[in-house]
Amino acid sequence: MNRIVWLALMVSQIGFFSSASAQTADFQTDSIFFRKMADDVLSSATAYENLRVLCKTIGPRLAGSPGMYKSEAWAEQVLRAAGADKVWKQAVQVPHWDRGGKDEAWYQVTDANGKKTRIQLDILALGNSIGTGKNGLFKKAVLIEDFEELEKRKEEVKDAIVVFNNVFNPRNLSVGQSYGESGAYRRAGPSRAAKYGAAAILIRSVSASANDNHPHTGTTSYDSAYPKIPAAAMGLQDADKLIAALKAGKSIQVYYKSLAHFKPDATGHNIIGELTGSVFPDQYITVGGHLDSWDPAEGAHDDGTGCVQSIDIIRAMKAMGYKPRYTIRVVLFANEENGLRGGAQYAQEAKSKGEKHVFALESDAGGFTPRSFGFT
Amino acid sequence: MNRIVWLALMVSQIGFFSSASAQTADFQTDSIFFRKMADDVLSSATAYENLRVLCKTIGPRLAGSPGMYKSEAWAEQVLRAAGADKVWKQAVQVPHWDRGGKDEAWYQVTDANGKKTRIQLDILALGNSIGTGKNGLFKKAVLIEDFEELEKRKEEVKDAIVVFNNVFNPRNLSVGQSYGESGAYRRAGPSRAAKYGAAAILIRSVSASANDNHPHTGTTSYDSAYPKIPAAAMGLQDADKLIAALKAGKSIQVYYKSLAHFKPDATGHNIIGELTGSVFPDQYITVGGHLDSWDPAEGAHDDGTGCVQSIDIIRAMKAMGYKPRYTIRVVLFANEENGLRGGAQYAQEAKSKGEKHVFALESDAGGFTPRSFGFT
Repeated sequence: MNRIVWLALMVSQIGFFSSASAQTADFQTDSIFFRKMADDVLSSATAYENLRVLCKTIGPRLAGSPGMYKSEAWAEQVLRAAGADKVWKQAVQVPHWDRGGKDEAWYQVTDANGKKTRIQLDILALGNSIGTGKNGLFKKAVLIEDFEELEKRKEEVKDAIVVFNNVFNPRNLSVGQSYGESGAYRRAGPSRAAKYGAAAILIRSVSASANDNHPHTGTTSYDSAYPKIPAAAMGLQDADKLIAALKAGKSIQVYYKSLAHFKPDATGHNIIGELTGSVFPDQYITVGGHLDSWDPAEGAHDDGTGCVQSIDIIRAMKAMGYKPRYTIRVVLFANEENGLRGGAQYAQEAKSKGEKHVFALESDAGGFTPRSFGFT
Repeated sequence: MNRIVWLALMVSQIGFFSSASAQTADFQTDSIFFRKMADDVLSSATAYENLRVLCKTIGPRLAGSPGMYKSEAWAEQVLRAAGADKVWKQAVQVPHWDRGGKDEAWYQVTDANGKKTRIQLDILALGNSIGTGKNGLFKKAVLIEDFEELEKRKEEVKDAIVVFNNVFNPRNLSVGQSYGESGAYRRAGPSRAAKYGAAAILIRSVSASANDNHPHTGTTSYDSAYPKIPAAAMGLQDADKLIAALKAGKSIQVYYKSLAHFKPDATGHNIIGELTGSVFPDQYITVGGHLDSWDPAEGAHDDGTGCVQSIDIIRAMKAMGYKPRYTIRVVLFANEENGLRGGAQYAQEAKSKGEKHVFALESDAGGFTPRSFGFT
């Protein structure tokens, strides 16, 4: 993870500081400076310790949840400890989706003799999904391979629970590509099925590992043209069993209960720390990650690492006594996971204030060895 | 990890199969074949499941230990299940080092008023180290920064416990480079100190993480010119505290007890599986990993992954109905960790039988995304 901080530093340095001083400083001076900064980042254990505290003492921090408030206080304190010249909070109204306790599901297989067998299903409501009501749903399950098959069999899904067989493609060397493809069913599945009268949908957990049964959540969204229906992800081992039974033509009904619901919007904050530029204090180089994380886990890679490595840029520059020419701004965004409202608020305020951002780099791909960065 | 299998396949294919058939098969045919094989490897969860069983049901499998015998039986069975044409065992006499139970250590700080404070030390005897005897050692601790300082202060270490401050260099982007540098004290430290009469040595655990206190073992070796003395690694947090106290000039004595000892050599085996070559059955392309692993852990990356991905090459070729032109040999070596006797036995038998090996690739760098391979 420290290696990502190092990359971020290189990017910010190479692009702006050295070119601005190219006429006076030579390549060798820059090179020594980069190495010194890299050494500081690689030698410091601060980012790891910050990550430990964020994950282990705060943990889940979804927008509106108690963890959100705790993580905001933590971020302010850690940015100050890192040596930021200025730490401030940018208020943003965030959605407050609440899972409402443990999701429950099982399915009932009826054999040729009418004998019924009940099998547990490890399940997790998708973020932003509506709930089923306290009595749950008990409906016929219909297996649908993909959106194309849904169009062909649209008459069959009315009042049923659609089970999408959105297999995670293991053949891509880029796991992110498979995540995007399989995730299409998580994002658009509910409304695509609701269009034809489905009562709910279940998808395969959008995750690479076939060796565990822990469903992965992630956000869904609804097309306002159709009714909202409950949506959940199944653990992959359970999904394999259910789908095999459906493929074998068994008569299956699924019970699914979720008390997921929205509470009124809450006031969250983008937490921002700055090192004021010595030459261009009103021009910004921004780095950041998102502070929120899903409710069932600790959000280490998504996106604790993005936060702590961004903070570490301020710490490293301060520790070296380096005064940046441009203002370095670290932004820990609110509500990326189920709303993107923190990013939207930041962009809107930057625009309305006429702030000049010369470069911005967000890290939200996990704290692995950095290979590349992209432009969007 | 499956990505490493894929690399291994590419290497074996590119180097030998396609060039042998270059006159008849064109690049496109090879390319389609490679992709098909890669797809099979990436889609199969067999290697992961094999790794789970090896780590979770067998676990530690140091040479001579009960785990060694279990892992050999597992390896034979898994190679057969993968579809090897031939599975055989190559006997090799292996050392049987036994930790003899939990290592114990603490240190006593005596302040200016003669008040003594006892502090626990999380410690792990180095592999192949001798023990202290059941009464343990209780000796003055002398901090030595490096071998250079040892030469300068050789008069001071007599009958003392030398504490080497072999800091793991966090500034290398290659963790392996730092491992090699810091590990020099693990490998050569005991005899270097014994030369000047030291009673034992402690080193900093040779590991990158500063955020845990779990000492890492690894093998040491003795120079027969000097007495053998006990040697152990300290957890990094405990090491930091002890070394800080020694640097502050405090008077410190260390108690260290280890019942480590060698039992008589045992008969272990290299476990070998083959797919017989269709054109050159007596010429071998060998891939492998080592089956043994250290006693305190499961040996997933070191070197369970090397084993399961090697086995998966046979599985994938067999699953595709592919008949290699050369014999593909998978060798799961005995006793890499504290003896290298499996590798030596394999080389000796290959030489005495006049076997022609056209290529060999061993994987023992952890099951990460492959970047390169080296020649030794």
